[in-house]
Amino acid sequence: MYVLAINFKTYKTSYGSRAVSIAREADLIAKEYGGLVRMILLPPATEIVRVANAVSYSSVFAQHVDPVDEGAYTGHITAEMVKEAGAVGVMINHSERRVRLDEISFILGKARKLGLETLVCADTPEVAAAVSVLNPSMLAIEPPELIGTGIPVSKAKPEVVTGTVSKVRELNKEVTILTGAGITTGDDVAAAIRLGTQGVLVASAVMKAQDPAKVIKEMAESITKTTT
Amino acid sequence: MYVLAINFKTYKTSYGSRAVSIAREADLIAKEYGGLVRMILLPPATEIVRVANAVSYSSVFAQHVDPVDEGAYTGHITAEMVKEAGAVGVMINHSERRVRLDEISFILGKARKLGLETLVCADTPEVAAAVSVLNPSMLAIEPPELIGTGIPVSKAKPEVVTGTVSKVRELNKEVTILTGAGITTGDDVAAAIRLGTQGVLVASAVMKAQDPAKVIKEMAESITKTTT
Amino acid sequence: MYVLAINFKTYKTSYGSRAVSIAREADLIAKEYGGLVRMILLPPATEIVRVANAVSYSSVFAQHVDPVDEGAYTGHITAEMVKEAGAVGVMINHSERRVRLDEISFILGKARKLGLETLVCADTPEVAAAVSVLNPSMLAIEPPELIGTGIPVSKAKPEVVTGTVSKVRELNKEVTILTGAGITTGDDVAAAIRLGTQGVLVASAVMKAQDPAKVIKEMAESITKTTT
Amino acid sequence: MYVLAINFKTYKTSYGSRAVSIAREADLIAKEYGGLVRMILLPPATEIVRVANAVSYSSVFAQHVDPVDEGAYTGHITAEMVKEAGAVGVMINHSERRVRLDEISFILGKARKLGLETLVCADTPEVAAAVSVLNPSMLAIEPPELIGTGIPVSKAKPEVVTGTVSKVRELNKEVTILTGAGITTGDDVAAAIRLGTQGVLVASAVMKAQDPAKVIKEMAESITKTTT
Repeated sequence: MYVLAINFKTYKTSYGSRAVSIAREADLIAKEYGGLVRMILLPPATEIVRVANAVSYSSVFAQHVDPVDEGAYTGHITAEMVKEAGAVGVMINHSERRVRLDEISFILGKARKLGLETLVCADTPEVAAAVSVLNPSMLAIEPPELIGTGIPVSKAKPEVVTGTVSKVRELNKEVTILTGAGITTGDDVAAAIRLGTQGVLVASAVMKAQDPAKVIKEMAESITKTTT
Repeated sequence: MYVLAINFKTYKTSYGSRAVSIAREADLIAKEYGGLVRMILLPPATEIVRVANAVSYSSVFAQHVDPVDEGAYTGHITAEMVKEAGAVGVMINHSERRVRLDEISFILGKARKLGLETLVCADTPEVAAAVSVLNPSMLAIEPPELIGTGIPVSKAKPEVVTGTVSKVRELNKEVTILTGAGITTGDDVAAAIRLGTQGVLVASAVMKAQDPAKVIKEMAESITKTTT
Repeated sequence: MYVLAINFKTYKTSYGSRAVSIAREADLIAKEYGGLVRMILLPPATEIVRVANAVSYSSVFAQHVDPVDEGAYTGHITAEMVKEAGAVGVMINHSERRVRLDEISFILGKARKLGLETLVCADTPEVAAAVSVLNPSMLAIEPPELIGTGIPVSKAKPEVVTGTVSKVRELNKEVTILTGAGITTGDDVAAAIRLGTQGVLVASAVMKAQDPAKVIKEMAESITKTTT
Repeated sequence: MYVLAINFKTYKTSYGSRAVSIAREADLIAKEYGGLVRMILLPPATEIVRVANAVSYSSVFAQHVDPVDEGAYTGHITAEMVKEAGAVGVMINHSERRVRLDEISFILGKARKLGLETLVCADTPEVAAAVSVLNPSMLAIEPPELIGTGIPVSKAKPEVVTGTVSKVRELNKEVTILTGAGITTGDDVAAAIRLGTQGVLVASAVMKAQDPAKVIKEMAESITKTTT
């Protein structure tokens, strides 16, 4: 099943009733394309409870967790907390929230113990290869310079995507590989899949859209057409 | 009105039903001591929604917010979000989550615009004095080496508390000053008030207690006896 | 005596023989304007030894030191080290290398014990005021958005400079206040002094100049004309 | 050739004349065991110039470099600078100075272009495996909890060393693997080599010794006996 992952970031639409409304719209599309598209929603930490309560056909992931256990860690977000709040997975190492290598390893180990899925972002094929050795559930290749530009990596730097696929597959046959950065249209999604990845990680194209549901639907439709 | 601020940190009791239950117990005590004790609860980011929904007589503060505005900041917690989730204030610069000086200033300015109260932690009288120039609503003096020890700063280093009060009051007559670090019993709370501060910031003494309500009640009672 | 502080940063000219050559040229000008202009040179850590050995009329400051004592701190730069290497002062909290408030306080205390002068950068009048409470030897006001632009803060935002002077002088009569960010010409230096500061902190205008000595000389000359 | 790498850290002996004196003693031993032991010295950034000038038979590495190029990066240490100062290699990601995964990749790429060797530290076999995919010249396995304890990893956790060797060798046949953390005696060095690594990374055992030369000589002797 191909993945459509929506990173809410901290946009104006990422919290409160707007966030819940986008989540509900995405969830309806997840229902419609069930079995063909896996919808992953990544709200900010404060909204995991509300988004998780609002959806039934989508998976909720945290945008980040800190590399700490339960204890005296004021202001931190633990994997235990996001799980309790309703998340079934965690994303880490997004270009806007990089973590150290030892922290990636720590969080992956901890998430596995807690039964949480993991999605690790990488900026280059080399970094993606290194990450793949640590066995996350998924990884996303996102050249930071294209994030938020509307210029899809699949068009601007297809060799980054294909290079990631080939380098990662030498080391890890199972990790789900997503394409991120600049994915805006159904065509971009199709290109990402044709380049060998198993889905996309999007943000501004949905969260800043006039009609987020329309964009999500176009992307889900494109996944379906490209993969069936 | 004197302050009893409870930092949930990321203890095992800080999230899920246990957190809501402690919040409800604290809220009943806030009701009982209304007008004499101001109860401030600081749950982790994921629990602000649930804790804020569960209480009526207490103020909910975030344990931390990041120095960013709305936008492309994956994995960050903004002041806007915590406000929307139900917080009326934010704590920053706890010793377990220090921020830079320019970030303290940025967050204070932003919180003011959003109508959020602010509580800034400081490790020494000198740092407290510098913070007081930035006009937070409250500041807490907490020598990091005593946090979580059960040895109250009011007993181990009373001169840190009195030094803070005298240095800060030269610069800022209005900021509410709290004593933190090692506050465990009603007596510690009374000592903090006698040293010239307007309340306490506690964590492990409540969150790791067998009977959190009993500890909170003892502290509220001590505030009442000491200040009336 | 008015200050002309040159931050070498990590420009191509900041290390090796080019750095030593700029330092020697600046030192000759320091000699020429002795008694009127205090020349402060801030080479990168690796070059403190060579620059300090090359000059006689200038003061060498480190661009940054880490908030640690002697011990097991691989990869850190301590105040003890830069002193041993020949520095007589340390700059901290430059916008390209911010440190936390508790760290500023720690480093200032440590530098005082070691007999090192201190220069703390600040981005706003409010932050400058907070810093001034911690009693550094000098502080520099530098709006980050103007650094490296060639647009002098004294022209683009004179109210930031005058606001800093008035806020800081309420709290601290003795700290030397420098103007930074975009200072490019002798006129910019004159404007900075007329706005009430005791000198300038410059970088690209000198380090990226075809003829650094010419720029330094023009600035020294401007200080002399403006202040005598 | 087996490696004896000495991390000066920021100990009292790490800078000034004491550092140069230890470097000279190590260099004499490097001369004596030339062809059998490769001596790598890692002084702090401020001392690279002096240490590099003082030795002839040893390689000087930086303890850390920042992930930046030449430019406006006040307070940073670049790979270009440490090379110019006399280093032929850089260590990164020591447990006392961790860097992010994307930064490790960036620095390795840059060091390769500059002709600098690279040594990357790792805390677990998993992290070491991930690092090995990025092709550093060397990597060191150092469980942080043993660093500075005098309890050698080769004795306390031999499975960490052998696990690293087996995991890394599946992915990278060429990288030199060093054992670090708690290495104190010649016997510890011998054990590290018998477990399959090509040398050791030591610090306190030398830098805090009454007679550093004696310790270095014992270790060099042990390498020679174990490997010939």
